[in-house]
Amino acid sequence: MCRSFSSFRCITMSTIKRYASNHAPLDSSKLIIEKTTTPKIKLPNDKLIFGKTFTDHMLEIEWTEDNGWGAPKISPYHALKLDPSTVVFHYAFELFEGLKAYKDPQGNIRTFRPNKNMERMNESAERIALPNFESEELLKLIDKLLIVDKDFVPEGKGYSLYLRPTMIGTTAGLGVGTPDKALLYVIASPVGPYYSSGFRPVSLEATDYAVRAWPGGVGDKKLGANYAPCIVPQLQAAKRGFQQNLWLFGKEGYITEVGTMNVFFVFKDKESGKKELVTAPLDGTILEGVTRDSILQLARDRLNQDEWIISERKFTIYEVEEKAKNGELIEAFGAGTAAVVSPINNIGFKGENINVPVSLESSGELTAQIGEWIRKIQYGEEEYKDWSRIAK
Amino acid sequence: MCRSFSSFRCITMSTIKRYASNHAPLDSSKLIIEKTTTPKIKLPNDKLIFGKTFTDHMLEIEWTEDNGWGAPKISPYHALKLDPSTVVFHYAFELFEGLKAYKDPQGNIRTFRPNKNMERMNESAERIALPNFESEELLKLIDKLLIVDKDFVPEGKGYSLYLRPTMIGTTAGLGVGTPDKALLYVIASPVGPYYSSGFRPVSLEATDYAVRAWPGGVGDKKLGANYAPCIVPQLQAAKRGFQQNLWLFGKEGYITEVGTMNVFFVFKDKESGKKELVTAPLDGTILEGVTRDSILQLARDRLNQDEWIISERKFTIYEVEEKAKNGELIEAFGAGTAAVVSPINNIGFKGENINVPVSLESSGELTAQIGEWIRKIQYGEEEYKDWSRIAK
Repeated sequence: MCRSFSSFRCITMSTIKRYASNHAPLDSSKLIIEKTTTPKIKLPNDKLIFGKTFTDHMLEIEWTEDNGWGAPKISPYHALKLDPSTVVFHYAFELFEGLKAYKDPQGNIRTFRPNKNMERMNESAERIALPNFESEELLKLIDKLLIVDKDFVPEGKGYSLYLRPTMIGTTAGLGVGTPDKALLYVIASPVGPYYSSGFRPVSLEATDYAVRAWPGGVGDKKLGANYAPCIVPQLQAAKRGFQQNLWLFGKEGYITEVGTMNVFFVFKDKESGKKELVTAPLDGTILEGVTRDSILQLARDRLNQDEWIISERKFTIYEVEEKAKNGELIEAFGAGTAAVVSPINNIGFKGENINVPVSLESSGELTAQIGEWIRKIQYGEEEYKDWSRIAK
Repeated sequence: MCRSFSSFRCITMSTIKRYASNHAPLDSSKLIIEKTTTPKIKLPNDKLIFGKTFTDHMLEIEWTEDNGWGAPKISPYHALKLDPSTVVFHYAFELFEGLKAYKDPQGNIRTFRPNKNMERMNESAERIALPNFESEELLKLIDKLLIVDKDFVPEGKGYSLYLRPTMIGTTAGLGVGTPDKALLYVIASPVGPYYSSGFRPVSLEATDYAVRAWPGGVGDKKLGANYAPCIVPQLQAAKRGFQQNLWLFGKEGYITEVGTMNVFFVFKDKESGKKELVTAPLDGTILEGVTRDSILQLARDRLNQDEWIISERKFTIYEVEEKAKNGELIEAFGAGTAAVVSPINNIGFKGENINVPVSLESSGELTAQIGEWIRKIQYGEEEYKDWSRIAK
């Protein structure tokens, strides 16, 4: 055990060996379901607020270094009771995922590429010494939760059930070391469309004084650690009239992400007429967004190759500024689970505004097209590859 | 309220105005004390493990955006009960401090420069949009906790009561925005000396593939976010036979910190015989350690200026390597609350070992001298400036 805060002595052979040990794997067949006896009243669609109300049940699985994954449990939504010395409160042993469940025209409940979330969740866990699990087992358990709480999946275009798989280190004790206990849980919140009517383009402040992520850091993982530090820069942007931060990196002013979304730009070459859809490459500072990946795949698959170039490449705020001046910047949008696509109409940079040609309550042509492509797959109106999973 | 995860819409004028509002300040005179009816059995000194057992009581103060700080409460040590959507679990709205209380020869309980911890705690809070408080009020409350739990402050050289002030965001809900609720709490753990007999020098791996902190980041604040990401690099160093990471920064290989401590090197110029005590400057990537500051002040005050240069400057692993080759590297040590000073005897860098001349169970001359200077002030054997506070 760890005698010291500084953890000079905290790493023992047992914590290293653990990765090779034969502890119990996550096993969905061990699921125990305990149903609520006091069902909640379901809110009408127009009262839904993102992440504020939750379904009747939650899924939980405890893990210990000694025994591995315990029996999964679906039980009534309830508070967590944790010792005040628990490592999640002190050292940010925490990670999460965000995905949505949709009701299709046949009444099935579908999730969109949930295997991608499971892969990323395992990568996040590995990066902060929390345990891994078999992705398909957790997906089966999430399906069970969706079936138990199926009446909470709202109907209607843009409505869905937001799922929040979370993993926290639950070791009680202040030594900074590898957690020997963890809790994986999933809660679910019925949510409405990001834009209730039409699009509402957002205005960004290009931010270089605060830096979201760094090579060798953890900005490509979905860790709690990446979120709290972004709030103050957002408040500061808001004071100056901007809704979000466009995170720049380095002296070169590389564009990385916007707020908590990936970001795409559309350029059109004046001479050739050729268009480019561009987003930053996965260089370790960019969150590996499921929506980002879906957009790239769909664009490569469906856009006319003679008219379009699809690029994952480094590009800078100066390039965007110059393109805008030349009339070659034609669209820009954030991409993430919440909004799918979120049009951008303005970027404040060094006291100047870079305007993106988009009218209010509207979006660029490609932005809207991509949003609709993805929506149709999410709601099961169209099958595409194996991207939509039906809960059974 | 926030409709969306991405928080494009999360920042309202009310969250901005809050900083100027007239909510209730932290007020130690409102303290409520509820004493335990089931006192714990106190462990003998040789059974104390850092941060594993706690005193009978804890201090808690709730904060809300609407009402400010509530009545402080000292009550029996107990678990925290939090909704699974609470922002501390998802977005790392969490920060802490670490300081120790010592019993002096007269039986008083003393803390060492606790005002420095309060200042830093306020700076950490401000960086992640958690509330500020009047430092002296929290110090008065900590003094009360120390008086209530005075029998837990162990006696004996090197023994102390480790205090862990913590602040967490307690808003329930998944929107990424400014927390409108928080909990400040203090728990206390009786601890033994870092080294039970003599010193035990540690071996470091110079780490450049993982980066602890960067300009524009939060590495200078005591946030939970800075800790979990350091564990895997430590495990990897341990696999290669090193006890801790020496965190490098940039292509230049700047030396920043070691593990979770600040780091000092002692060089001796072969020609002039002049010695230099050097540590990295506070450039935003270095934790502003109380021990670090104390060492610099004492060194400037007590070391012979004709023989010593005290430097806060950038220096690189290459400089250390060269100095070692020339026989000019004479000491190196980590500095932090846990060990005060922790001697280093080896640094692995690119497959080579940089040896620091120190025998096992020993430390360099200055390392031991500084450790003893600070210990005497901590235990009230010597008064120095206003560095020691007596709990009343």
